[in-house]
Amino acid sequence: MAPRFSVTYFVRAADAGEAKARALDIALEQTVEIPRDVVPKGYVEEEILGRLESLEKSPDGRPGFLATISYSDDDIGGDFPQFLNIVFGNSSIKPGLKVEDIGLSPGILALCKGPRYGIASLRARAGIGESPLLMSAIKPVGLSTKELAGLAHDFALGGMHFVKDDHGLVDQKTSRFDERLRACVEAVGEANAKSGGKTSFVPNVTGPANAVIERAKQAQEVGAGGVMIAPALAGYDVIRTLAADPDFTLPIISHPAFSGANVVSPDCGFSHRAFFGALHRLMGADAVIYPNFGGRFGFTREECLSIARACSAELGGLKAIVPAPGGGMTLNRVAEMREAYGNDIMYLVGGALLQETSLVEACRRLFAAVHA
Amino acid sequence: MAPRFSVTYFVRAADAGEAKARALDIALEQTVEIPRDVVPKGYVEEEILGRLESLEKSPDGRPGFLATISYSDDDIGGDFPQFLNIVFGNSSIKPGLKVEDIGLSPGILALCKGPRYGIASLRARAGIGESPLLMSAIKPVGLSTKELAGLAHDFALGGMHFVKDDHGLVDQKTSRFDERLRACVEAVGEANAKSGGKTSFVPNVTGPANAVIERAKQAQEVGAGGVMIAPALAGYDVIRTLAADPDFTLPIISHPAFSGANVVSPDCGFSHRAFFGALHRLMGADAVIYPNFGGRFGFTREECLSIARACSAELGGLKAIVPAPGGGMTLNRVAEMREAYGNDIMYLVGGALLQETSLVEACRRLFAAVHA
Repeated sequence: MAPRFSVTYFVRAADAGEAKARALDIALEQTVEIPRDVVPKGYVEEEILGRLESLEKSPDGRPGFLATISYSDDDIGGDFPQFLNIVFGNSSIKPGLKVEDIGLSPGILALCKGPRYGIASLRARAGIGESPLLMSAIKPVGLSTKELAGLAHDFALGGMHFVKDDHGLVDQKTSRFDERLRACVEAVGEANAKSGGKTSFVPNVTGPANAVIERAKQAQEVGAGGVMIAPALAGYDVIRTLAADPDFTLPIISHPAFSGANVVSPDCGFSHRAFFGALHRLMGADAVIYPNFGGRFGFTREECLSIARACSAELGGLKAIVPAPGGGMTLNRVAEMREAYGNDIMYLVGGALLQETSLVEACRRLFAAVHA
Repeated sequence: MAPRFSVTYFVRAADAGEAKARALDIALEQTVEIPRDVVPKGYVEEEILGRLESLEKSPDGRPGFLATISYSDDDIGGDFPQFLNIVFGNSSIKPGLKVEDIGLSPGILALCKGPRYGIASLRARAGIGESPLLMSAIKPVGLSTKELAGLAHDFALGGMHFVKDDHGLVDQKTSRFDERLRACVEAVGEANAKSGGKTSFVPNVTGPANAVIERAKQAQEVGAGGVMIAPALAGYDVIRTLAADPDFTLPIISHPAFSGANVVSPDCGFSHRAFFGALHRLMGADAVIYPNFGGRFGFTREECLSIARACSAELGGLKAIVPAPGGGMTLNRVAEMREAYGNDIMYLVGGALLQETSLVEACRRLFAAVHA
């Protein structure tokens, strides 16, 4: 028998009988997808068929049960999308089911080497000790490359450790990808020369299927300090592929665009910690952007902290990564965020800085507030 | 000014004032993602910023409004993932928003050539007139290539027009992708030689990021009759890339694995017709698999029929595609489905046929029932 990994699902159900029936359905649906009475005896039934390992009433008061189902490493077939398919392929379409947690196995860990860098290396790149990291974004779409590079320069001069493309910046005619990449790497380099800082420029390489890997490698050649990818748009295996590529050496920052439905509904998708924490670490993201509590998105403080904890909790020996909450962050929320997150965080502040008269000064005030 | 495309969102809101505020937030969030007071005058404000075109109370009784927002073709940047990002990138993370419909523009139609084949060509391949198509799936994972090829043979001999891999079949050690592909193409060819039929074998090419396109091209070389891809796993641009590739000539069938959260919640994601209809046609899928009503998934009859209608409704001149409802389909539901869907459908029947003593006979009974 091969080793098995496990998935714990929240199963909406009125009673234990209904929950058990639904859990056994998941075990069937996610593996053999045929009626129970025709599952072939022997290898298929004993190895491939999902196995209900435990079932208990949901301890947090939600109207349902937690069902843990184990799956065979043999079913993964060396294929991360197939791993996701086993975790939640067809069952994602059934209301009242949610992936709560994932228990690893040797097969998953052989496939997913995890982040190449993680939080410790990102801090080393930024030249800081165990203090928070700072990131900002050049925007909006529609500005010229010169204007965007000017923003990148000022963010760097103001002390941001990472300056990224807005996730909507791709290859628009107002600022072509390759032109912007070169101009921003150069602008950040100039600011570093002035300040003695070590700011990295991080282009958004999310793009057409045949361009993502190419743009990521171009970013490396030109001297960028990382790349940003939105896995829900680019495909869930792209980050893993890049993180495992021995010729690719940049940190990877993930962006949550288009992934919202996977987490916002209490009735489907994933728990916040499983999606933004465990899955993104397995993919190999070094930092994970997600919407902060109290901003313009609806995540609660507890959901956000569950993501932050999942970024560093023991997970098969994979490196701890950086939670990067953003979305409506302002300077006067720093105290509250420091209290909530502590030091293992990357503050992503964008629009609020652009509202200030002097961008460089605004960045410096933010830097001071975060490191006070 | 560039042409504009539009997106109609359902916006949960208590009154028109709240709805308008939320709609203006979407217009900002999906384009410039900075506070309204710092949006640069001129090109950014006039061209790039989303524009609220209309707002009306939801006519179907849901507690909210329909907001139509237009976006500039300039923002797409020749990039389908960026188009999706504009449609619903960050706003996917806000509860109480749903993409209802998409209004096309020249920019989208330049980017999305749509399905290469569509329903008429799939029927021609199958050698039938304006009658329903039939598809089945070889499974489960864990069977040997020989056993799976035997099933493919029998499905073909029984009259199924398309025989596909189960979406969980990838490159497991029990049946390697290339070995299964060759064996199944051969087995279906043998059955066709016996029956005079024109059954196509359709391998699942969803897989690692660097393998999908390669496996699709391998399928073409070996003589498969189509490929199946789950876009939510493989990435939303892969089908479009293949459909637009002049050297790739196979029909593409999409599978809904891992996409459930995008449709099942009333509070987030897409309407069924926008997701499985419009988006899949824009991607270039020739047939779209989705869970049928009354099976083991929760889609309603009306949701399913809205998908079927969206597969053939006028959409920028793109070809009509085939709705392929499946998931718990049995022989005794044929009458009900014929009444609901008419002839423009591909019946996807899998597990129910495997429960019968003679697979070939079961397929023939299904064929007869569908064409009676």
